[in-house]
Amino acid sequence: MNGSNLYVGLVHYPVYDKRRKVVATAVTTFDIHDIARCAKTFGLGGFFVITPLESQIQLMEKVILHWVEGTGSVYNPTRKEPLSLVRVSRTIDEADREISHLWPNKARRVATGASGYSGSIGFGRFRELLEERETPFLMLFGTGWGLTQEVKDGSDYVLAPIEGRGYNHLPVRSAVAIILDRLLGDRTL
Amino acid sequence: MNGSNLYVGLVHYPVYDKRRKVVATAVTTFDIHDIARCAKTFGLGGFFVITPLESQIQLMEKVILHWVEGTGSVYNPTRKEPLSLVRVSRTIDEADREISHLWPNKARRVATGASGYSGSIGFGRFRELLEERETPFLMLFGTGWGLTQEVKDGSDYVLAPIEGRGYNHLPVRSAVAIILDRLLGDRTL
Repeated sequence: MNGSNLYVGLVHYPVYDKRRKVVATAVTTFDIHDIARCAKTFGLGGFFVITPLESQIQLMEKVILHWVEGTGSVYNPTRKEPLSLVRVSRTIDEADREISHLWPNKARRVATGASGYSGSIGFGRFRELLEERETPFLMLFGTGWGLTQEVKDGSDYVLAPIEGRGYNHLPVRSAVAIILDRLLGDRTL
Repeated sequence: MNGSNLYVGLVHYPVYDKRRKVVATAVTTFDIHDIARCAKTFGLGGFFVITPLESQIQLMEKVILHWVEGTGSVYNPTRKEPLSLVRVSRTIDEADREISHLWPNKARRVATGASGYSGSIGFGRFRELLEERETPFLMLFGTGWGLTQEVKDGSDYVLAPIEGRGYNHLPVRSAVAIILDRLLGDRTL
């Protein structure tokens, strides 16, 4: 199915803080629920929460277990299906390896960000790339003040930013929703 | 400017709960920040938080004051501009009147929802309607389990739902982001 070769990675390290220092941010449960629901809505292959912090990994595993298998799955079943798509990994490389194992081709990485990047690809070009159904794509979103330059430089592609009207500070949750709709939503509407 | 005649109303009453009982939901501050940022990104005229509950109104006014004029405006100025777009009103009618006073024509109401509605309009048709620059549009989003039938029936238009792939439970924050992008984002990308 269209979309099933696309994966979202929500990166908590390495990202910038507001002073452009490289940090590990805390996991926000709103991010997880919102992005998981978007991933399910658009038929994605999976959603990786990327954090090296042991306390955050344990928190995430508890949240997922509660909604997917615990009492939460009965209380609110609309959370079960999306959270079934969530995986936790310690590094971007670990997520990448996990995806690549499932496909004939190695995963390609696509970085995103709110500012321009020389040589970035547009949404139309990324839609074309996704047509190559045997290749999985790991699309990376930075929390905090965004993915580091090194992560962008090390990706296969950097996606063009969503252009605001003089204001350029969408929450990562909203950016993921809009970008998935641009890539996989019905363009004829 | 394109978009300035569009207003979002986030309705906390009257909406359905999961048993289809009509209730007043609590305000979620994540909704306010995320939707205000989207409203600012796409150049909207304003964002109305609609709740009849006095405690919620006071909470909202405190949050807005903190980020727009208080210490928050210095700590994180990227919240100041979006929250300047937020107004609190007790009813949908009150929001409607406040908007209508600012424009030559009366506001037209557009309801949204996750399920189909007979006679709903598509995104392309709504984009055309927005071209009528002297008419303001109040687009209503329901919290909880959505706007009541009565609110939909009493609106001038009901917008077609975002079609998921067998899963139809986007958070209201994500639905607003996607719909604003479909209405006001660059369609040529």
